[in-house]
Formats: sequence, C-alpha cells, structure tokens
Amino acid sequence: MTTFAIPPLDDEAIAAALARHGRLAKPAGSLGRLEALGVQLAGISASCPPPVPTSVTVAVFAADHGVVASGVTPWPQEVTTAMVGAFAAGSAAVNALARQVGADVLVVDVGVANDVPAHPAVLDRKVRRGTDDLALGAAMSIDDAQAAVAVGADVARDAVARGADCLVTGDMGIGNTTPSAALIAAVTGRSPDELTGRGTGIDDDMLRRKRKVVVEAVRRSEGMAPLELLAEIGGLEIAAIAGFVAAGAAQRVPVVVDGVIALAGALVADALTNGAVRPYLVGGHRSVEPAATAALEHLGLEPLLDLGLRLGEGTGAVLAVPLVQAAARVLNEMATLDELLG
Amino acid sequence: MTTFAIPPLDDEAIAAALARHGRLAKPAGSLGRLEALGVQLAGISASCPPPVPTSVTVAVFAADHGVVASGVTPWPQEVTTAMVGAFAAGSAAVNALARQVGADVLVVDVGVANDVPAHPAVLDRKVRRGTDDLALGAAMSIDDAQAAVAVGADVARDAVARGADCLVTGDMGIGNTTPSAALIAAVTGRSPDELTGRGTGIDDDMLRRKRKVVVEAVRRSEGMAPLELLAEIGGLEIAAIAGFVAAGAAQRVPVVVDGVIALAGALVADALTNGAVRPYLVGGHRSVEPAATAALEHLGLEPLLDLGLRLGEGTGAVLAVPLVQAAARVLNEMATLDELLG
Repeated sequence: MTTFAIPPLDDEAIAAALARHGRLAKPAGSLGRLEALGVQLAGISASCPPPVPTSVTVAVFAADHGVVASGVTPWPQEVTTAMVGAFAAGSAAVNALARQVGADVLVVDVGVANDVPAHPAVLDRKVRRGTDDLALGAAMSIDDAQAAVAVGADVARDAVARGADCLVTGDMGIGNTTPSAALIAAVTGRSPDELTGRGTGIDDDMLRRKRKVVVEAVRRSEGMAPLELLAEIGGLEIAAIAGFVAAGAAQRVPVVVDGVIALAGALVADALTNGAVRPYLVGGHRSVEPAATAALEHLGLEPLLDLGLRLGEGTGAVLAVPLVQAAARVLNEMATLDELLG
Repeated sequence: MTTFAIPPLDDEAIAAALARHGRLAKPAGSLGRLEALGVQLAGISASCPPPVPTSVTVAVFAADHGVVASGVTPWPQEVTTAMVGAFAAGSAAVNALARQVGADVLVVDVGVANDVPAHPAVLDRKVRRGTDDLALGAAMSIDDAQAAVAVGADVARDAVARGADCLVTGDMGIGNTTPSAALIAAVTGRSPDELTGRGTGIDDDMLRRKRKVVVEAVRRSEGMAPLELLAEIGGLEIAAIAGFVAAGAAQRVPVVVDGVIALAGALVADALTNGAVRPYLVGGHRSVEPAATAALEHLGLEPLLDLGLRLGEGTGAVLAVPLVQAAARVLNEMATLDELLG
C-alpha cells in the first residue's frame, strides 16, 4: 500500500508571513482572505515570502461508473470517452480556463470503460474498464482501489518532479456524483439523502433513484476503513484524486481542490493520512452539489469562489489559481509601511 | 457639462451567446455565473463570441478629503501622497495584483492635497488640493465636480483609444469612505447610519463621529441632482470614477467596479445617465463596507468575489479580471456538443 509522509506546515515561515502582513503598506487585515492564503503558502513552502506558483498542473482523472446501469444519470458512458477526447484536443471548458490562468492540463485515463484513442496529452493508466454497479455490490476490489490511489500519487509526484509548484484536481466520469455523495456521507456521517444532489442536471424521478442508491450504499458500508470505502462505494477517479492530493501534500505543494468529486477524493486522502493533508488544501470553488458543502465543512475549507459552477473537470479550482498566485505575490512584491514612509 | 452617449447592449449578440452556451459541450447552465458574464460581454462588444479582454487598464484616482479634519479616520493625508508614490513605484497591493492578472495601472492625481512628485506613471490632473470639509459645508463647487468627472471620462476615453478593452476602477484617498457612504445613502435612500462602516479600520468613538457627519450630510443634501450631490457631499476621485465609468460604457467596454468608493462613483454615473451605464458594469468584489452592498443592490450587481477585502485601490476588482477573461474564453474556445460527438 502506498503510504504518504506528509510534514506539518513550517511554523517559522507562518510566523514570518503573519509578521510581514502586519508590516505591509495597508491597514491590518485589509486584504481579507488573501492574507490567510499567503500565510498558508508560506507554511507549505517553508519560506517567507512564499514563491509565487508559476507552474500549475491540472490533472483531470477520467473513469467510468457501473452505477450508471442503475439509472442515476441521463448521460451515456460514451460521453466520458468523448470528453477525454475534448480534453486532449484542448476544447473542453477546463482547457479554456486553464489557458486563461496559464495552467497545464494533464488527462489521466484511470478507468474509462471504452477505449481511449492514444494521444500525447492523455496518460494511459487504466486500472480497469470502469467500476461495477455499486448499487448491486462492491464497485471494485481493494486491490483496484489501491492501484487507482497509486496512479494519482504517481501523477502528483511526476508533476512536481517536472517542476509543478501547484496542483489542481480535475475529474471526468459520467455518474460520478453518485459515489461522491455516498463517500462524503459515509465519511462525514451526514444524511446521505440530503447530500445527494442533481449532479449535472437530473429530473425528480432520477433523483429519487439516485438517493435510494446512495442511502443503500452508505448503509452497507458503515464502519469501513477508507480504502474499503473507496472499493465498496467509490470510483477510480476518486481514488486517484485521493492519491494525487496525498502525494501533493507529501511533496509540499498547495493542492487546489475542485467540486464534489475532488472533495470526495480529498476526504479519503484526509482519512488515509489522519488529517495530514488538510493544511495543504485550498478550496477552489463551492460546488452547488449539497455534498460539497458537507465535505468542505468536514475539511475546514472555505472555498475562494462561489460562482454556481457544477461542471467538474476542475473548472472551479482552475478559476481560483490566480487568487493563489496573487496571495503569494502580495507577500513578495508589496512595500512595507516603513519602506514607504522611510 | 460632459454628456455621455451610451448605447444599449446588442440584443443580437446576446441571443447568439445564449444560444451558443446551449450548444457547448457541457450541461446547460453548468458554468454558472461565467455564462451570464459571457453573454453580457457579447452584448457589450456586439459580437459573439465576444473578444477576450487582453488589454486591461486599472485607473487609480487619488484625491484628498477635507472631512479628515472632522476626525473620521486615524490616517493623515500624507498617506494619500505616499500611496501615490507606491502606485508609481509599483509596490502597492494593486500593483502586485495587477501584475498577476496582466493589467496596467494608471495613477491619476485628480485632487491630492499635497504635491505629488512628477512620475511617468502618474497623470497630473489635479482639479484642486482636496475637498473642503463636507461636515461644514459643500465639499467643492459644481464646476470642480464637473471638472473631476471630465478627468475620469478623459482617462477612460484615452485608455480605450490606446487599446484598452476592459477598464477597472481604482481609488485612493484618506477619508473617502465618508463621502462614499453619504453619496450611497443619498442616492439609494437607505439609512445613512446603517451604511456608515469602519472603512480601513476605526474605533467606536471615531465611528460615532463619522456616522454623525454622514447623517448630517445626507439630511442636508436631500433632493439634490447627481452633480450637486457630488459637489456637496462627494469627493474628487469619486467624481472622476463616475466620469470614468460613464465614458467606459459610452466606449462599449466592460467596466469592473471595485468597492465602496467605486460604487459611489458608479451610482452617480448611473444617476447621470438614467441607468444607461448599468449593463456595462461588472461587480468585482463585495466590500465589507455596509454601503457597498446597498449600492450593489441598487445597481443590480452581484460581485464575482467575496474575499473580505477592504483596502480599495481597485484590489478587489483587479482580482476579478481573470474571471471576466475566462467568461469570454469559454465562448471562444470550447467545442460544441455537435463538434465533439459528430
């Protein structure tokens, strides 16, 4: 099993960043949440001022979900495959937004059901062709869940080895709000019924079906350890995101997490590491999915953006990247009051 | 008097952008507020897809306020002068944030009390050396208010003539939350007592004094026309921002408005143009000042960001620029579902 050695944030750099914020040419606290974010970045990088992240990698983990057979989404699995093609071609929403913020998009097939055409921008790390229907039994074996976690961890380590100084979670997988809601309910103990939302947009009948599936899955998985949970009611891209988040923290880089799928992965990473990942996380965007808010509360995260996005792919997190960079810049580039008046 | 010919948004481009959003490879509405923003940009530019704004100018209008003599702020007017120096040197918060988003910062002395050292980055358009104390009488003459409006309008027109395709409001002026709260209360009819906040941070005694000043100013100015209001209880940078906003709209570019000072200016622009500026405005950030929310509601604006900033300078609005650019990019760069599956 992959294990993660995650250091705590650096107290000295945190203290230095707090002190520096007090000396900069502005009223105390007047940059609001940018100040706390800058302090966090100092702690993560163990330096004050923290380096401005300039090499940002968005990893979009793609996989399919057997639970689509239980009628929880109107979209066919072919859409997962088509969207991988769009990510590779650079024509999906996350590509447009990543270009805006200067981030690289890496697409990882960790479990797409269909064949994915070979493309230099797509990493073939398929663990299996989608999960089994979690409404009928375990979504996958524990070995498969572990393998998917390892894929995500490898992707994070490789990205950092190539120079990435900020990681962003992305995801694609038709049906994946169902395992995400189930995992989040199982980990947080919140009502699975309340946490199940409309995903990318389903009608009332489908929502009732989806809720029933989630409630049953959570009931069945009570008391399971994180990896068992991933295998029983999770998904391959969620497992990969858990590994990506944990390995990113172990590499001491900030990890900006997107919506409900990413948060399910982050919750598992949190559970797997006894909370050690938490100080490395930055909440990118508040998804409108109800489970997202439950996961954010559990992780103690307040997302930077709340723009009503519910697309996934990493879109919400990518939009928050300039705010992360801005928070570091402030500590690097602003004059102190003494410098200004002296 | 400067007048502004502001066309309505282009209905055809708006309809085309709405239709295009329905065809892009994503569930309908799943990009949340980015979608409405993209549609607005199409309407502003009269083209679909709208061009991605790439030449963004932040104009920081600086001026002083005689009302500081009435004890509404702990900061001396020398800070306005020093901050103009910091803007020119590129070492203030707004400079760091503007560099992050690739925006140009233009500093305009429209009424700083002290001499401002000549600097190529500072435009000397001083109308007068600060206002008079609005607690004791009119802050300035109507001619001065008109002249300051004209300065702002000139700055917007010149920026657009030099290629700017997005304007951002910025401001600096010790004491300027006092006239801003007064103007916003006068225009919106909301309680001046409730709209007066702590600005960059004042104690309870000072807040009581400030409230009294604002309440009296609003009482005295009841029924005044917008320009009279500017002269009686306003400020030079607020007047300049009003002109900047109105001329930006007349030039058909989006104007991203910052916090409470910018909103006071935008409210005046709105009143001067019978609401014609409104569709050109983008709310950048929700200032924590209570008057900001009153002004936003009056203008029908929902800011893109809410990060607890209360610094001014244009910092909140600058942080929203990548979101504006991203909204346009989505309409330019995303594939349609037909293209993807066809």
